[in-house]
Amino acid sequence: MNGILNGMRVVEGSAFVAVPLAGLLLAQMGAEVIRFDRIEGGLDAGRWPLAPSGQSLFWAGLNKGKRSVAVDMRSPEGRELITRIVTAPGPDAGLFITNLRVRGWMDHETLSQYRKDLIMVTLSGDRHGRPAVDYTVNPGLGIPDITGPEGYDAPVANALPAWDLIAGNVVVSALLAAERHRLRSGIGQAVDLTLKDVAAAMVGHLGMIGDAVLNPVAREKSGNALYGAYGQDFVCACGNRVMVIGLTRRQWDGLVKVTGTGDAMDAIAAASGLDLAEEGNRWKLRDVISAILAPWFAARELTDFASEFDRKGITWSVFRTMKQAVVEDPDLSDANPMFSVLDQPGLGRFPVPGSPVEFGSHRRQRPEAAPALGADTEEILADVARLDDREIAGLFDRGVVDGPRRQARPAA
Amino acid sequence: MNGILNGMRVVEGSAFVAVPLAGLLLAQMGAEVIRFDRIEGGLDAGRWPLAPSGQSLFWAGLNKGKRSVAVDMRSPEGRELITRIVTAPGPDAGLFITNLRVRGWMDHETLSQYRKDLIMVTLSGDRHGRPAVDYTVNPGLGIPDITGPEGYDAPVANALPAWDLIAGNVVVSALLAAERHRLRSGIGQAVDLTLKDVAAAMVGHLGMIGDAVLNPVAREKSGNALYGAYGQDFVCACGNRVMVIGLTRRQWDGLVKVTGTGDAMDAIAAASGLDLAEEGNRWKLRDVISAILAPWFAARELTDFASEFDRKGITWSVFRTMKQAVVEDPDLSDANPMFSVLDQPGLGRFPVPGSPVEFGSHRRQRPEAAPALGADTEEILADVARLDDREIAGLFDRGVVDGPRRQARPAA
Repeated sequence: MNGILNGMRVVEGSAFVAVPLAGLLLAQMGAEVIRFDRIEGGLDAGRWPLAPSGQSLFWAGLNKGKRSVAVDMRSPEGRELITRIVTAPGPDAGLFITNLRVRGWMDHETLSQYRKDLIMVTLSGDRHGRPAVDYTVNPGLGIPDITGPEGYDAPVANALPAWDLIAGNVVVSALLAAERHRLRSGIGQAVDLTLKDVAAAMVGHLGMIGDAVLNPVAREKSGNALYGAYGQDFVCACGNRVMVIGLTRRQWDGLVKVTGTGDAMDAIAAASGLDLAEEGNRWKLRDVISAILAPWFAARELTDFASEFDRKGITWSVFRTMKQAVVEDPDLSDANPMFSVLDQPGLGRFPVPGSPVEFGSHRRQRPEAAPALGADTEEILADVARLDDREIAGLFDRGVVDGPRRQARPAA
Repeated sequence: MNGILNGMRVVEGSAFVAVPLAGLLLAQMGAEVIRFDRIEGGLDAGRWPLAPSGQSLFWAGLNKGKRSVAVDMRSPEGRELITRIVTAPGPDAGLFITNLRVRGWMDHETLSQYRKDLIMVTLSGDRHGRPAVDYTVNPGLGIPDITGPEGYDAPVANALPAWDLIAGNVVVSALLAAERHRLRSGIGQAVDLTLKDVAAAMVGHLGMIGDAVLNPVAREKSGNALYGAYGQDFVCACGNRVMVIGLTRRQWDGLVKVTGTGDAMDAIAAASGLDLAEEGNRWKLRDVISAILAPWFAARELTDFASEFDRKGITWSVFRTMKQAVVEDPDLSDANPMFSVLDQPGLGRFPVPGSPVEFGSHRRQRPEAAPALGADTEEILADVARLDDREIAGLFDRGVVDGPRRQARPAA
């Protein structure tokens, strides 16, 4: 693989979404990412969604293109091995990302005794050491309270683990920032963040904390309306549902023009005394605006206006199920250079995404399938932990490590 | 400011959420981030939420700690100025992030004529050049279809612009990866990504594309249940709603133990023939499990069990509104070192987040307020564009640039 992070080696000890995602994003930019797991598989080895075979699509999705080493971490020998792998020499190694809550031998303080310039990025739940997952962070911040149909009286959780995905990306940038600093100063460090702080920072950045503190009226559920300006979903004559956006002035003018609703919009602006050129006024008048637009969509099939909307640069989308999306949207197929259709043993054949980032300096890397658990144990023990064949064979024999191919390596 | 990215200079030309967020995250790690805007303010200068004064909390939230230069980009002089600022010399400069769709003078091809090793990261809507925003990307991928109460027959959009937040973070790591490469090779480049590809990659990484392609039965709405294992919300006797998690074996065992529901769980396991130690079985039996747990919560007030849940390491949370969260949760106040309470002119006083990442090598930086539009125009023209006082005065006089303080700089 020839990626922009070529030469960098990152060790990952992780479960759930965020840190595995961080390792994946690094791997798909060309880093060598070594993931270690317990011999019986990590906490997320069997997580849903599953393939028809029963194997985890989730695990395979988040561990693409990594190297896998399976180690019994309860044994002192296993712990020593992990320590060797994490702290192995090399100017672009000594990088460790984790969310495992292991005290003692896996602390930065302990590990950095073996490699002084180790960079260890640790994601935990909250700053008090309490566990937290996406599904608990989100309700505590009030997002489910403002999600869902207008007037619905219960909170609605995200189906997407958004905070996990964001935190995983923060782990990547934190690691790259710390490595940049090490390159200049020679100094390694512990880098710490929590899922809850990531989420709290983001809602603060969006102005939601200021809003809650300063404004007497709390934000309420507003269904599928785009908050603060104009954007709404409509059902067409064919039963399809579309989302249309009038966030910027240009988007709004385009939408009014293409639907021929200018006179009606002028009338409600005059009646209300609110200038619809201001996005906040479109938010205030969204119900009236939608009442004007709804008949336009109800009278038309999707095919009546889809091409024209695209041609005129309208910002819009059709609502799909994921099953429809994989059939109907070529951007989710290998017509999109980000995707490759891979045959993955035990899973099946489907489009698999590589990095969403296209670096001019490097050809796009095709995604690689996830390894079998322990697929690279032998090689990593030899190449990274620098053990000889006898030592490696002994570790396999004593059950300290495992892998799919347990035969001894041929003598060099 | 003394952050881990000290010395790095990034120029940002942006609107909406993702790229402004990227600039903010870089600034909060210590980079000097120069944001340029039109003299009348950018597309998002007045975006909701607003402070009681009518000023944008959104804009202030996403532009904290940046330097602001206000330029008339319709004028050739203004364009030349932006070009000078973007391509100014310095080993840790020549970094440009943008989502503005400006062809010609703001292309990487054109700009890199002035600085060959320029790194320019461009986020656009989709790979076909069509516009896209969070609210259109999400429906197209089927997330609203699986969000919301079980049985509810319409899609439910995210209240959180999750894809924007994720894409902003991807911009940061793409920039750092490209800068790392430039440091080794001397080579700059164009780096391109789209909001839609970021989203499509993430749903693929989570296994959702494989699920949609391979499995005959589509994932459906499942209310507030944690997908694939166990997690559910319950209403307590006091009216509070809590989320409790039984995702891992340890979380599940803890939940069963603390609620004393072991016998009942054993009974449903025996009746169904499904081992509840397997997380997928907890998902399949979630309704029966919830029926067993619901009376436990209905009979108790939050204060009856909150401390015990924390003491026993249960993964759980109370549902709050954002207004409750800012009052009740000390993690959203300056009791959390990530937050500082700032007085911001025109906005008010409220807790403002800094970086969620704690680097061992650097003291946590306090967040800085957003600049007034054009607050740094004069300084940037002098220090970055290297213009002399006469040239700067001329630009102000001709209306090519603007700032809150239009007085001439004292002669040096």
